[in-house]
Amino acid sequence: MSSDRIIQVERDILSKNDKLAAANRARFRADDALAFNLVSSPGAGKTSLLVRAVSDLKDTFPIGVIEGDQQTSNDAERIRATGVPAVQINTGKGCHLDAAMVAEAYDRLPWLNGGILFIENVGNLVCPAAFDLGEACKIVVFSTTEGEDKPLKYPDMFAVSSLMLINKIDLAPVLDFNLAQTIEYARRVNPKIEVLTVSARTGEGMATFYAWIRKQSSRMNAATLRAVSG
Amino acid sequence: MSSDRIIQVERDILSKNDKLAAANRARFRADDALAFNLVSSPGAGKTSLLVRAVSDLKDTFPIGVIEGDQQTSNDAERIRATGVPAVQINTGKGCHLDAAMVAEAYDRLPWLNGGILFIENVGNLVCPAAFDLGEACKIVVFSTTEGEDKPLKYPDMFAVSSLMLINKIDLAPVLDFNLAQTIEYARRVNPKIEVLTVSARTGEGMATFYAWIRKQSSRMNAATLRAVSG
Repeated sequence: MSSDRIIQVERDILSKNDKLAAANRARFRADDALAFNLVSSPGAGKTSLLVRAVSDLKDTFPIGVIEGDQQTSNDAERIRATGVPAVQINTGKGCHLDAAMVAEAYDRLPWLNGGILFIENVGNLVCPAAFDLGEACKIVVFSTTEGEDKPLKYPDMFAVSSLMLINKIDLAPVLDFNLAQTIEYARRVNPKIEVLTVSARTGEGMATFYAWIRKQSSRMNAATLRAVSG
Repeated sequence: MSSDRIIQVERDILSKNDKLAAANRARFRADDALAFNLVSSPGAGKTSLLVRAVSDLKDTFPIGVIEGDQQTSNDAERIRATGVPAVQINTGKGCHLDAAMVAEAYDRLPWLNGGILFIENVGNLVCPAAFDLGEACKIVVFSTTEGEDKPLKYPDMFAVSSLMLINKIDLAPVLDFNLAQTIEYARRVNPKIEVLTVSARTGEGMATFYAWIRKQSSRMNAATLRAVSG
């Protein structure tokens, strides 16, 4: 098989996904729902972070969660234990969520009018970078245990993310972790990326993350008002 | 585009890769070179582990290393600093090494007669599982910081690996890490997987890993002798 044919198929897949992602985005906008696509390596702590965040925010916003994993429904069960609705997607051999999967899962969540949709992607620092799900923005969760050089070695993911949440900051003292170096590398591939440090385990920094979420929510509402009054 | 067409293209890619992997395997066998394909999440510590291993083994075996990353040649440089030859492959958008990349990189290494070829794959717990590179076996490096449930959530990788190296075992006491649970989960998807605990940072457990490597080397030589005398 020629590599031209492979490239054509890849283009077709991405172009079809982009159309479905645009439809998701229009739908989230119509529902005033703010959608975040959480991406990371396996084990960076996305689910633990979400369990804490949805517990703390569920009385302020309607919240729904879409969980992506190759196998198991462990993550959706952990979210549901907080009382927040969650839909699990199992990708099987698949290495990322796509816009079609998200559209189908969104149908199975209650109406998130004015609320927040958290989408937890498959743990993979490569493939999910290329697939728009219709989210307002991507949040890359990066843990202190992974080593400072990852933004340079996996640049696509950091280039497409709006926020880098550096998790497991409570472990930084026992590791040889250099925070300033990590931020410098991330900004080398994406000068605009915002950075917050958190610990899903201890709760350190989470209030600042919630303030960031509220800022995105106000921005979206202001944009909607401008569009309506426009 | 139909999903049938996508599946057909995936099959074509894997079938072409399998042929090239078989050619690599024949070549490694002809050179009496034992090839290991190291797979893991980003940041599990494959490179640190290799830096220590090649430093400790280079006087016993001829060693060559092939390093796979989306970007940078940091890892090959870290290996070369030990005096061991290393070739860096940058996959760009690609999420795994394939047999063609390994064939080309192997050409650029010195002759490994009776030696060891370490191939460090792109950090990704999903895609490299499907691609045979011609290795004697896959070693999945799993770090204590990633959480016990990963073998269940990313079962393909643990199903195709012969050895699980649980790295960063020195951090286990400061984490809520359950070793027995992790091994139970890994054996649920692959009852035959061997398990060793190591710390690339402190050196704990590395001697046992080297003994395991020597055992694979003896097995390969015994199989070759049987083939020659058979």
